[in-house]
Amino acid sequence: MSEISIALAQLRCELQNKEQNLLRILQSLEEASKNKADYVLFPELYLTGYTMNEQLRVLAEPEDGESIRKIREQARRYHVGAIVGFPEVEGDALYNCALFIGKQGEIIGKYRKVHLYHKEKEWFTPGEEFPVFSLPEGNIGMMITYDIEFPEAARILALKDVDILAVLAANMVPYQHYQDIYLHARALENHIYVAAANMVGLDNENIFFGESQIVHPDGRSIYKAGNNEVIPVLTFDVSKKNPEKELLEYLRNRRTSVYRNEPGFI
Amino acid sequence: MSEISIALAQLRCELQNKEQNLLRILQSLEEASKNKADYVLFPELYLTGYTMNEQLRVLAEPEDGESIRKIREQARRYHVGAIVGFPEVEGDALYNCALFIGKQGEIIGKYRKVHLYHKEKEWFTPGEEFPVFSLPEGNIGMMITYDIEFPEAARILALKDVDILAVLAANMVPYQHYQDIYLHARALENHIYVAAANMVGLDNENIFFGESQIVHPDGRSIYKAGNNEVIPVLTFDVSKKNPEKELLEYLRNRRTSVYRNEPGFI
Repeated sequence: MSEISIALAQLRCELQNKEQNLLRILQSLEEASKNKADYVLFPELYLTGYTMNEQLRVLAEPEDGESIRKIREQARRYHVGAIVGFPEVEGDALYNCALFIGKQGEIIGKYRKVHLYHKEKEWFTPGEEFPVFSLPEGNIGMMITYDIEFPEAARILALKDVDILAVLAANMVPYQHYQDIYLHARALENHIYVAAANMVGLDNENIFFGESQIVHPDGRSIYKAGNNEVIPVLTFDVSKKNPEKELLEYLRNRRTSVYRNEPGFI
Repeated sequence: MSEISIALAQLRCELQNKEQNLLRILQSLEEASKNKADYVLFPELYLTGYTMNEQLRVLAEPEDGESIRKIREQARRYHVGAIVGFPEVEGDALYNCALFIGKQGEIIGKYRKVHLYHKEKEWFTPGEEFPVFSLPEGNIGMMITYDIEFPEAARILALKDVDILAVLAANMVPYQHYQDIYLHARALENHIYVAAANMVGLDNENIFFGESQIVHPDGRSIYKAGNNEVIPVLTFDVSKKNPEKELLEYLRNRRTSVYRNEPGFI
């Protein structure tokens, strides 16, 4: 048995108000820790809000920035890990980043969004890999919103032996059915758990609908939030796979020799 | 405008009773033609039933077999095309085949199931390609049941400019949510229409649940059948894409340079 407890930080976000969002992150870590969470998953770019203008460069931080330092201190204090979305600056480049902080406040690693949506391309440099983070509870991979709409991304992570896909989302009305379809498909077709935290409410410009979820590898939701602020802590057993896995064996039954002959595929 | 009318032959199937199933195919072509269908889509292995034993070799036919000849005559008589699932024999090999018959009774082409499920591997030789069939109404690709559970397959067809994915299904209770998830995901993530015909009822051994569907590229069902025998004729405009396509551009925004670096992927 490999149980893990993940808190989905389904929160409002104040656009470009880093101080306020940081406070919510710190409070959420304390609250989730008291509710026995191992890790808290935050939405996409939660530290700054989903902002695509010149403020992005002002608000972005390096991996060792001031806000990150405070989040790491809080993680250590409450012995709870965190996956935090923020705009990362390194040299001249900006990345849409998910930083993985461990229970001792250490940096386990980070993921930089590989698939950039629309105007994001004007601001961010895309990530170039899908890292896997090995925890005592299982292997975790990450995605940020638009990434999950590409089946290739989840497939690559599954082939690298991921048990849980953590999705930092900023999905807006009226695309509820997109989020629902993609979270379920990625879990079922790859025999993995999918945990997604989406923002809620109006951030001045966009309405986010929440509906944060944990999807079991059998394609059913273990938990699905509504449209209000909540920080549910969900405990599930990573070693429990889809009972049909032995018959389906999606990874083993791929026909790569056929795919390889399709020039546009890769 | 490129309208097409597809009939989904959601029918019971008598296991290993080729005569009876052939009769239903011929009747369905007549009925669907009177209801102005351009093409009739039948379920997987409909001619013989979903049978995996020594009878398969006895019941299988070559592309120019007797049953196929009668279906082609009926297609010509009623000026209606058909996509028919049957076990095809060629030399010593058996294929889980979908034959595409045109409105003049001509053979447009065929698809041999690429992804074989479980015991199918003991009986069938897998197909090695995903052909695309160009019709005046649009480009059609095919899949047979388990194929649709692999995102690679629909992606390859979409990259080859398919407008409609025709799925010959034999999906059983209790996997209704599998069919639902996969049909919606393949349509939405590839900007294509998905039309699926599933069997219904008990064939002696298995309970098929029907729920044949047409899914729009926007990820919503245009039509979804219940669990009884029906042959609905659905008309839709192939040129109407997902209104969000210009923003999403899933095919253009794939990161093949990243995928290529993942050794297991291909």
